[in-house]
Amino acid sequence: MSKFTMFGQLIARPGQRGELAKLMLESAATLQEMEGCIYYIISESVDEPDALWISELWESEEAHAASLKNENVLAVIQRCRPLIAGVNPVKLRLLGGKGI
Amino acid sequence: MSKFTMFGQLIARPGQRGELAKLMLESAATLQEMEGCIYYIISESVDEPDALWISELWESEEAHAASLKNENVLAVIQRCRPLIAGVNPVKLRLLGGKGI
Repeated sequence: MSKFTMFGQLIARPGQRGELAKLMLESAATLQEMEGCIYYIISESVDEPDALWISELWESEEAHAASLKNENVLAVIQRCRPLIAGVNPVKLRLLGGKGI
Repeated sequence: MSKFTMFGQLIARPGQRGELAKLMLESAATLQEMEGCIYYIISESVDEPDALWISELWESEEAHAASLKNENVLAVIQRCRPLIAGVNPVKLRLLGGKGI
């Protein structure tokens, strides 16, 4: 299985989750045209008022790494940075499942 | 956005993660024919030796609830139960993204 998945929890600065989510949804729009990105889903935590969760699936780890060099992606990261208090990535090895 | 997503962390009993993953992959096979399940992805944590993560996307919260009444799904849950030491669901509200 060469596909690559990751989850990341983004903690917004207090009161900034809505604004951060808006920027992240714009970043998802940027990814619409990006090769190798199968999905990129943004959710907010029900129980943690400052937390967003990003769930990603890529054709390969290389495709994900390449996206981080894309100038549009870098621009979004730059815009998001002041709103972010913390990042908690969950490192995963994809085993399989439905829809992938 | 009426689609429904959830993440869940499953903690296997010590040394049982591989066996639990195998059963969960069989459960994903059961879901292949299940209406309303867009994806159901099983990964193992790189950093936590007993942890699996399940990431799901459903057409609606009702479709997910209905799956939990399906007899094949219930049978898989029953088989997995002795291997599971804990369950940590992450409650989410889907905001949007790519591929959904």
